[in-house]
Amino acid sequence: MAAAPVWSVDPRTGKQREQVAAEATARDVDAAVRAAHDARGALADRTVRAAFLRTAADRLQEAADRLVATADAESALGLPRLTGELARTCYQLRAFADIVDEGAFLGVIINHPDDTATPPIPDLRRYKVPLGVVAVYSASNFPFAFSVAGGDTASALAAGCPVVVKAHPDHPALSEQVAAVLREAAAEHGMPAGVLGLVHGFDAGIELIKHPLIAAAGFTGSVRGGRALFDAAAARPVPIPFHGELGSLNPVLVTEAAAAERAEEIGAGLAGSMTLGVGQFCVKPGLVLVPAGAAGDSLVKALADAVGGTAAGVLLDHRIRDSFLAGVTERTALPDVEAPVAPGAADEHAVTAGFLTVPAARLAHAGGDHDLLLEECFGPVTVVARYTDENEALAVLSRLPGNLTATVHLSSGEAAGQGRGPGLLAELTPLAGRVVVDAWPTGVAVAPAQHHGGPYPATTSTSTSVGGTAIERWLRPVAYQNAPEALLPPELRDDNPLGLPRRFNGRLEV
Amino acid sequence: MAAAPVWSVDPRTGKQREQVAAEATARDVDAAVRAAHDARGALADRTVRAAFLRTAADRLQEAADRLVATADAESALGLPRLTGELARTCYQLRAFADIVDEGAFLGVIINHPDDTATPPIPDLRRYKVPLGVVAVYSASNFPFAFSVAGGDTASALAAGCPVVVKAHPDHPALSEQVAAVLREAAAEHGMPAGVLGLVHGFDAGIELIKHPLIAAAGFTGSVRGGRALFDAAAARPVPIPFHGELGSLNPVLVTEAAAAERAEEIGAGLAGSMTLGVGQFCVKPGLVLVPAGAAGDSLVKALADAVGGTAAGVLLDHRIRDSFLAGVTERTALPDVEAPVAPGAADEHAVTAGFLTVPAARLAHAGGDHDLLLEECFGPVTVVARYTDENEALAVLSRLPGNLTATVHLSSGEAAGQGRGPGLLAELTPLAGRVVVDAWPTGVAVAPAQHHGGPYPATTSTSTSVGGTAIERWLRPVAYQNAPEALLPPELRDDNPLGLPRRFNGRLEV
Repeated sequence: MAAAPVWSVDPRTGKQREQVAAEATARDVDAAVRAAHDARGALADRTVRAAFLRTAADRLQEAADRLVATADAESALGLPRLTGELARTCYQLRAFADIVDEGAFLGVIINHPDDTATPPIPDLRRYKVPLGVVAVYSASNFPFAFSVAGGDTASALAAGCPVVVKAHPDHPALSEQVAAVLREAAAEHGMPAGVLGLVHGFDAGIELIKHPLIAAAGFTGSVRGGRALFDAAAARPVPIPFHGELGSLNPVLVTEAAAAERAEEIGAGLAGSMTLGVGQFCVKPGLVLVPAGAAGDSLVKALADAVGGTAAGVLLDHRIRDSFLAGVTERTALPDVEAPVAPGAADEHAVTAGFLTVPAARLAHAGGDHDLLLEECFGPVTVVARYTDENEALAVLSRLPGNLTATVHLSSGEAAGQGRGPGLLAELTPLAGRVVVDAWPTGVAVAPAQHHGGPYPATTSTSTSVGGTAIERWLRPVAYQNAPEALLPPELRDDNPLGLPRRFNGRLEV
Repeated sequence: MAAAPVWSVDPRTGKQREQVAAEATARDVDAAVRAAHDARGALADRTVRAAFLRTAADRLQEAADRLVATADAESALGLPRLTGELARTCYQLRAFADIVDEGAFLGVIINHPDDTATPPIPDLRRYKVPLGVVAVYSASNFPFAFSVAGGDTASALAAGCPVVVKAHPDHPALSEQVAAVLREAAAEHGMPAGVLGLVHGFDAGIELIKHPLIAAAGFTGSVRGGRALFDAAAARPVPIPFHGELGSLNPVLVTEAAAAERAEEIGAGLAGSMTLGVGQFCVKPGLVLVPAGAAGDSLVKALADAVGGTAAGVLLDHRIRDSFLAGVTERTALPDVEAPVAPGAADEHAVTAGFLTVPAARLAHAGGDHDLLLEECFGPVTVVARYTDENEALAVLSRLPGNLTATVHLSSGEAAGQGRGPGLLAELTPLAGRVVVDAWPTGVAVAPAQHHGGPYPATTSTSTSVGGTAIERWLRPVAYQNAPEALLPPELRDDNPLGLPRRFNGRLEV
């Protein structure tokens, strides 16, 4: 039986562009994983690894015109956004190269023998080593930044782990092109192509997570798909870490004082954030708590004006479009739900952005049909829940599952520490991995202090998929006891020939 | 229906000592978890938390005579060992107090806005917050150090997480006594008793892992029990981290040159390590690769002399005794397996230590009955596999599942870097979380550089249950974006009022 063909599809027309590849068979997956496993040694030298990451960034940027054109043809996300996303992806690769060079991620800790401890401490030296081959499941909505050369791949390679990517079916042609560029960069540093494998197909994704030589996985996608893979990872004879980003509602609280102070500005800002990328961001604000009353009405009016003026957009694929339209219809049909600007189909391919309103009281207690409004609806729609007092708003927030982000808009007085301001930050912290004040959650900076993750289902682990600490996911510590200096790796020698930051006999050294 | 009684049993006689408690019902478990959840705020202040840990250590030491007597009556481990174990436990509590005071575990990272980044970086400040209530499953073999006041509890409290302990049925009376001392210490710092809950019973352990308010779990025990709880943790509607230490063979390789140099010393050392605590250590060396030939014969003779002279000992309970005797019988019956000193029953309660030998060739290839010898057998027995050349020994090692430790004994030349020395360290690293050179794996120091964990089934995560970094298991990062200085917790303020080690705009500060 011939393997199923993999087609590149233009979401603007729904037409097949070209056949890109064939779906990987179990044998193909096995070959890719074994090639990656055999390539581990090629990533062992950190200097070479960092150089490879920088070369990969250079080569991707050189190929920008071609890559962005392919990405646009497969995603309809537009050239400006995709050009920016590729730049971000290259920045990210270089940022991880810097992290590899610095070496703090190795977590070096050295203890000389200490007979005063109970029990006595022998010579112990600990650092972190790569876990092995990492499986990366690409996302639909970031063809560059959360795909073949995205944050999971960059951080895994930086950790010294070869990667096998399961391509997202929404951009198979781009996936092949990016993989080829990464392999070209690898070849320039004498690395085998196996450091970066690529497989297509749903079944291949299942084979991949079950493969005995896969040591860990990263995933960005839906709760349903991510949970199925998480379950498969946990059910293996040898379970492996599964770092999945599954879904997030990203609540926003606008205080009464904030609405009184700048209703129009907040309404317009919300419109920009919720429609960005046709509402296809994992951190799109999906539930906004706005006070009842005149100030809140002004906010809703500003939101309506801005959203109503937003051009129609094409979603990533027809499955996502169908889910969006069904989700909007189901939510709009609920009692007391109104649609000041109705989201829906603009034509056969495009959709228009919109938003719904509902009294917050409908969401403050468990068990009703309105709980559907507390589930993510992927696409350009958000739910504005009008609250009568802030305790009601907090009651709604306390009912939410985990989120990537939680946002609060404060008045200038609250931001200066008056009233509820300080308490609200503490109230929002249990909800999410990132708490945003007087800004919007869309736009996830690549930075050492970034945390892109949160309580389940936002993520399936306590780690981040963006920012410097994302590298920690692909490492495990190992300690050497009583190892003679002549046998120790240079990272663990007393004289610190590599100049690594470390903890030496209890003291932090930088 | 009355709840089942929980009896304290003397393993030296098999007799019930006293009824200590009743098994916890689902309602009891719920009450303990809710009390712990309500106690989170009491642990929020790090200064108070550190003081509480030190007071707990003080009060445990003050109660040493009573606690050690109870522990001995329930475990038969003897007063000297238990006195040392309690001292270790107190040292560990104080070490975590120091870690709390220092605050490096918070992982503070601060980024000021940077418009030169792609995309631009907003003000981002990240640190770690406690996960919530932690479930701790005690071990049988360390009534103090891996039980109610052991490493899991100490690290969780240090992280700011209240704990509910599932008591081990081998020492229920001691568990109650230690819990009472910890609660006394908590009360001295104004904390509610709920910071440390205690439940008894197998079913209670299952209820505990499924409770929605449990945020993470620590476990030390068997592969079977640990895997069942791991599976339950993964199958929850909201999965939680499960840090389980399940089992380990702890292989030892004695090189030909090492055997030639000091066969008798190694044989005697091995006897001491494998019989320590009546062979009931998770890091007991369970498989020892010894060269065939005269030097190896001398090693085996020295081992036989020392093990043969070891006094009989009482195992922790009758179930463990039955498993040990059955395991020894099954292994001894395999072809080509000999027992130079036969392990077995000494009388109705005590057992004698012994060891088995087998040609390593029997273990070098998959699929035979001899694979049983590659599974842990809890108790005072080890398997000496005689190899004809070191490649054969490495072939056996490459077949092992994950281990807590891997040990190599080298000649002085190899330790100085000659021959295979440096390569062997690299060969052993994939096998375990701790690699020991020219020493024995038993005795797990409480130290910043310690790593007590390893590839599955040694542990179910990449973390450690001993040493300073054990605290990392109970935390999750959170980032604050664009939060005004007035609302930030002091840990994240520019002026660093608490003097925390941190990464500030990329630079490490200590």
